[in-house]
Order: sequence, then structure tokens, then C-alpha cells
Amino acid sequence: PDWKIEDENGQLRLVRTYEFSNFKKALAFTQKIGDKAEEEGHHPSLLTEWGKVTVIWWTHAINGLHENDFIMAAKTDQIAGD
Amino acid sequence: PDWKIEDENGQLRLVRTYEFSNFKKALAFTQKIGDKAEEEGHHPSLLTEWGKVTVIWWTHAINGLHENDFIMAAKTDQIAGD
Repeated sequence: PDWKIEDENGQLRLVRTYEFSNFKKALAFTQKIGDKAEEEGHHPSLLTEWGKVTVIWWTHAINGLHENDFIMAAKTDQIAGD
Repeated sequence: PDWKIEDENGQLRLVRTYEFSNFKKALAFTQKIGDKAEEEGHHPSLLTEWGKVTVIWWTHAINGLHENDFIMAAKTDQIAGD
């Protein structure tokens, strides 16, 4: 429910922001999601800020959303312990 | 020369994008800059994407740029090997 579909100049993306109590925890989450992305061969954009990380999934090849993006969003939630 | 000052709703920020040959190298750079930020007690926003990382420095307390942001920008360049 916390994922939103955003339209970036006609390109649809799945976006969710996770909150943390400091920068270090946010950075550790970015690393975990990045490692998972490498493992799966599908890469998000990750905005790391003090106390939060915004994860953005979309599929370059189709310039929009594919089933795999929703699967990766669910895996991101699993890693977040959500 | 590659740092730009951007105005985000009246808040000035120092912004630079570094390019890499893949996602993994971009993520490793994000981790290095994040570790340095923890060490220095001054935290940027880091946007990690496939093949690039955008680093954004500014000072929350003054809602703008402080000398320390320029020092951190120079340290970011050193870590990037620039």
C-alpha cells in the first residue's frame, strides 16, 4: 500500500520511501537493496538521505512498468522487514 | 568545475553527478561517500542509479550552503579520484 505509481514525463515508476532513525541505517538499507538488485539483474534508483531511502523501480527496456518491477518492490519490502 | 549550485525552492545546494560503468561501481561509490559522511558528521543526499551517482551537499541548519559543504565536495572529488 505504501508504493505509489508516479509518472515521470510519461514514464511510469514504482516509488516508495522507507524511514530510518539515522543516515547510517539508511545507507545500510541502500546497500542491501543494491546487492539484491545486482543478484536479480534488475536495478532501481536509490535516493539515500538522512533517515530515509527512496526506492524507484521501472523497466528501462519498455520505458515503464513490467511485472518484474512489482516483484522487486515486494522483495524490497521483505528486506525492509515490512 | 563539475559542481553546480542548484536552487531547490530557495535552498542552495552543491550538486555533482559521477559516472561509472555499471550499477555495482556506482553503489560502491555511494557507500564510500556515505562512510566519509558518517566520519565527518555531515551528510549529503546520494542518488544511486545504473552507472551514476549524484551527490548533493547542503547544510540543513542554515537551509543553504556553508563552507563545510565546499570542503565535503572537495573530499568527494578526492574519493572519486578526480
